[in-house]
Amino acid sequence: MSFLVEKTNGKARAGRLKLAHGEVPTPIFMPVGTYGTVKAMTPRELESLGARIVLGNTYHLWLRPGLEVIAAHGGLHRLMNWPHPILTDSGGFQVFSLQTLSKLTDEGVTFRSPIDGSPRHLTPEVSMEIQRTLGSDIVMAFDHCPPGDAERAVVEDAMARTTRWAERCLSVRLNPGQLRFGIVQGGVDVELRLEHIGELGALAFDGFALGGFSVGEPIPEMYRVLDAVADRLPADRPRYLMGVGTPEDLLTAIGAGVDMFDCVLPTRNARNGQLFTSLGKLTISHARYRDDLAPLDPACGCETCRGYTRAYLRHLHACKEILFARLATLHNLTFYLELVRGARRAIFEGRYDEFAGVTRARLQSDHF
Amino acid sequence: MSFLVEKTNGKARAGRLKLAHGEVPTPIFMPVGTYGTVKAMTPRELESLGARIVLGNTYHLWLRPGLEVIAAHGGLHRLMNWPHPILTDSGGFQVFSLQTLSKLTDEGVTFRSPIDGSPRHLTPEVSMEIQRTLGSDIVMAFDHCPPGDAERAVVEDAMARTTRWAERCLSVRLNPGQLRFGIVQGGVDVELRLEHIGELGALAFDGFALGGFSVGEPIPEMYRVLDAVADRLPADRPRYLMGVGTPEDLLTAIGAGVDMFDCVLPTRNARNGQLFTSLGKLTISHARYRDDLAPLDPACGCETCRGYTRAYLRHLHACKEILFARLATLHNLTFYLELVRGARRAIFEGRYDEFAGVTRARLQSDHF
Repeated sequence: MSFLVEKTNGKARAGRLKLAHGEVPTPIFMPVGTYGTVKAMTPRELESLGARIVLGNTYHLWLRPGLEVIAAHGGLHRLMNWPHPILTDSGGFQVFSLQTLSKLTDEGVTFRSPIDGSPRHLTPEVSMEIQRTLGSDIVMAFDHCPPGDAERAVVEDAMARTTRWAERCLSVRLNPGQLRFGIVQGGVDVELRLEHIGELGALAFDGFALGGFSVGEPIPEMYRVLDAVADRLPADRPRYLMGVGTPEDLLTAIGAGVDMFDCVLPTRNARNGQLFTSLGKLTISHARYRDDLAPLDPACGCETCRGYTRAYLRHLHACKEILFARLATLHNLTFYLELVRGARRAIFEGRYDEFAGVTRARLQSDHF
Repeated sequence: MSFLVEKTNGKARAGRLKLAHGEVPTPIFMPVGTYGTVKAMTPRELESLGARIVLGNTYHLWLRPGLEVIAAHGGLHRLMNWPHPILTDSGGFQVFSLQTLSKLTDEGVTFRSPIDGSPRHLTPEVSMEIQRTLGSDIVMAFDHCPPGDAERAVVEDAMARTTRWAERCLSVRLNPGQLRFGIVQGGVDVELRLEHIGELGALAFDGFALGGFSVGEPIPEMYRVLDAVADRLPADRPRYLMGVGTPEDLLTAIGAGVDMFDCVLPTRNARNGQLFTSLGKLTISHARYRDDLAPLDPACGCETCRGYTRAYLRHLHACKEILFARLATLHNLTFYLELVRGARRAIFEGRYDEFAGVTRARLQSDHF
């Protein structure tokens, strides 16, 4: 594999990441496929939207369908019928955020499966082994992610543990072609973030992620820290901002030097009737759309906007029809993927700041 | 419009029905699109499965999104982005079966909307006007459908009312190109069915439906009556068996001379994890499919059977993933549409009885 930065524009970068299952242009947004499916979408549809890499959740897939079933398929790609790259997280974030009863030691985390009550022990080594079985193109290190409002001592403790765990992750052999990314913690303290970048940056990871953002801290804090630290991650390797965020977040982070993103926002909001458009967010349940024959976003060329009216979408949403989740997800993912494609073009053309400014202004125009 | 019987084989018929929005080969199965969407499917997918006509429910569409919204779109075709033929029912069956509080008079039926409590009055004339607004290719007469265990006097009363209502339906002008089908009642009494066929057959309907089947009567009773009465409907017009049924029901009814079918079974069962296969029904939640790498139905060429394993489908079902509803519906509809295409081919080749016998034996092979 190799990561090539093709063009920079300020701190923003356009690149190309060669992975075992294909090449990914950056900046890129990765749709989230928690249980081996990007909710409501088929792999063919994701392809047609231009998605080239998706994210799978180790925690969820470990519990269901379980490693035995995934191994029988020869990995996650064939299980879910997705031939393109996959990044899997380490499972750590989900254990910390979804499990109310878990026990953390330096060895790892012990918890009970909420599916069948079985005891589970997740360690750096186990996470690597699970992700080796999943066969993902990018394997994430097992980290300790504290809450957004954690005290400095807690953050420092998590950083130190994350570094020790990172070294243990690196000691596990993966499959040929699998890359491994380290995860930087440090909360919203620039000094701590830079310290952790120094520690992890010295290790032999193929890329680096910023973890511990969008975990409850104020957005301006996140922007401030991103702006100060993202471009201090090793310049020759991809930079991934985990679990973030809104279109505005992506614009800011790309401007700070981030290359990769994942977030449930476009897919989850779609199912809840929150649509992203070129003129800001649209809540389809509003009465004003009852008779509205316009497409969802007249500036969008997706199947949803070409074939259906706002009034029909509102009706499908009111009736809880599956087709609503489909058409809304299709549109929101198109919006996100088009956003990062636009950013990439703008970087190549040396006008990223202008692109980000104009796009941000349109998104905040409060049109709806 | 015209209906052409191209070939008969015993009582079974292969035909061609020219409608305002296209031609429909018969025997045909019509997927049910209650609220202006065949649940979980896009119009493009339905096309790709070979569906050429879908059913819309007047009762549901009248309540949501309502006639104003549908009229603003210029009718149901454009609301739901389906350019091919649509048949709409009259709303009568739903009022009788879904409304616990409704008042029946000779004028019509009065009830309250379960959506907003608004008072509604459905009469033959109102049903015709609604269906004119919907713009369906085939408009069904407003009939009175008694329960499957109704006494003879109740059945006779419903027949007489249905005849009076049929005449009132015929007095309402529809849009150019809209066809109108009458509905025959009479329960499981062959004598009454033939009597009602005599009454309705004399009226200027473009086709005839058999209503009041699959409403609780024993299946052998339905088969006995179908066999005795279906081919007594006017031979020069299409014959439609409403709301029926299983693959075995379709085989029997086609053999008795029926041309058209609709049923929620393939779509509803799909969402519940009940899959139709060439070797009988398969319940995907069974533990035996946990590690099963085989396609759902090795004899099927649909997207679901080409791309995914039973183990993955079982996993999606367990996780209540939308993709399960999609892939299962796609498969079940493929199965039904392939069944009627197979029947049509067999009729042309003069081997319908053999086809029905072999297919029935496979379906009942108890393979799973």
